[in-house]
Amino acid sequence: MHFMQSLQQAWKDHDSLVCVGLDPEPAKFPAHLRGTPDAVFAFCAAIVDATADLVCAFKPQIAHFAALRAEDTLERLIAHIHDKHPGVPVILDAKRGDIGSTAQHYVSEAFERFAADAVTLNPYMGRDSIQPFLDRADKGVILLCRTSNPGGADFQALDCSGQPLYLRVAETIARDWNAHGNCALVTGATWPEELGKVRAAVGDMPLLVPGIGAQGGDVEAVLRHGRTGDGTGLMISSSRAILYAGHGEDFALAARAAASELRDTINRHRHD
Amino acid sequence: MHFMQSLQQAWKDHDSLVCVGLDPEPAKFPAHLRGTPDAVFAFCAAIVDATADLVCAFKPQIAHFAALRAEDTLERLIAHIHDKHPGVPVILDAKRGDIGSTAQHYVSEAFERFAADAVTLNPYMGRDSIQPFLDRADKGVILLCRTSNPGGADFQALDCSGQPLYLRVAETIARDWNAHGNCALVTGATWPEELGKVRAAVGDMPLLVPGIGAQGGDVEAVLRHGRTGDGTGLMISSSRAILYAGHGEDFALAARAAASELRDTINRHRHD
Repeated sequence: MHFMQSLQQAWKDHDSLVCVGLDPEPAKFPAHLRGTPDAVFAFCAAIVDATADLVCAFKPQIAHFAALRAEDTLERLIAHIHDKHPGVPVILDAKRGDIGSTAQHYVSEAFERFAADAVTLNPYMGRDSIQPFLDRADKGVILLCRTSNPGGADFQALDCSGQPLYLRVAETIARDWNAHGNCALVTGATWPEELGKVRAAVGDMPLLVPGIGAQGGDVEAVLRHGRTGDGTGLMISSSRAILYAGHGEDFALAARAAASELRDTINRHRHD
Repeated sequence: MHFMQSLQQAWKDHDSLVCVGLDPEPAKFPAHLRGTPDAVFAFCAAIVDATADLVCAFKPQIAHFAALRAEDTLERLIAHIHDKHPGVPVILDAKRGDIGSTAQHYVSEAFERFAADAVTLNPYMGRDSIQPFLDRADKGVILLCRTSNPGGADFQALDCSGQPLYLRVAETIARDWNAHGNCALVTGATWPEELGKVRAAVGDMPLLVPGIGAQGGDVEAVLRHGRTGDGTGLMISSSRAILYAGHGEDFALAARAAASELRDTINRHRHD
């Protein structure tokens, strides 16, 4: 199924805008898993199985696997999600971006090797660096726009002929890059008013929103500025607050409770 | 040894500004290697061994390995370069960029797992996304500035309060990010005048220059606009034109001849 269809279906079927980020850090795993063979897979799969009916997407962050030499684990994890929870889209959080033939190799990495449904990308190198991804109409192309970190302002907020860069990026993507309707944008929860400006610029394009929780983003403000007319349009990402909600053998249940609470908090503001 | 010292030493000892890009594409390998076990390593190591005394750096491009599930090959290749050609720095061309704890995982990927001496990064997410790399004073931090592809102009050339974005990026890095003197910039050969503006803005900071050859960049113009006072300051990258210069069993000799010719062409314009 196309990423955009899966996402819309999951928003509806699971009544959820929650995207669970899969950022495994073995030092934070519960004691009974630490040091066991295949602990990264066991941990992530348990989180996935405990939360799949509460989310609109899963978002594994590739650096966490690469630093552990665990690309094969990531392949198996994504296969597990597709197998056990068909219909829940998987976003590979990779923030790649390169030109020509190299972009094509990153396409292969994301969509063939890892079988992701969508990938995060960096737009700095421009249209031709993204084109091989855009050409995959069945896949989601999620471009950095206004990121949640403090340094996000360094360049993204620069004034470009009367508009901040991030808004020029958003408008360019909405106007010129989205012929297949497969684009989405990363806009941090820590800048809800700027998120609102992006929403105004891009119609109903989905926004992937990190920065809730640990980074201090305000759910109510994100919903107010970012939701679409039907109360969707957002993938609100949470990683650590869900993954490490519990530290004992019941960590997956604790993760489920945290995901459920976030979903409910979001849903209280979806149709205000 | 620190990246910047290695680079300066290699510029001098090898009398070369050539950086050979290692972008393996098995379909382009000579017939006698195609389909053999460990062909990617055999091909790349042969190129490395045939050209190491003619270059200032090697630059493996990670997507080419990732698409082949060959990260282990890349680890062995970089170990081979360090072992057989100590003093020739290795730049991991990864163009990563992410925040906080994730940036730290990319640091581990580049410098621990792959043992690279430098890494290419995307500056769009701002200072804090790069800080964990900047903190590694022994490693090179090579940031995208003005890239060689046609789409490079989409955002990099936008006017930001009277200056193009790429120049704001260059100035910010030179002024605020380079406390350890370990920064360098990617500036494409296809825009030699803009390369000159970057050179004027960043003093003697090294520039990694792709876009010679296949992309049409002009060596003479790159040298005229980009060299420093002592005729260095540049890592002029060439991949396909060297890797695939020959198609027979003597492919490594053909690569050596192509690298040697590029070095000579460059050197004719280093001290004009």
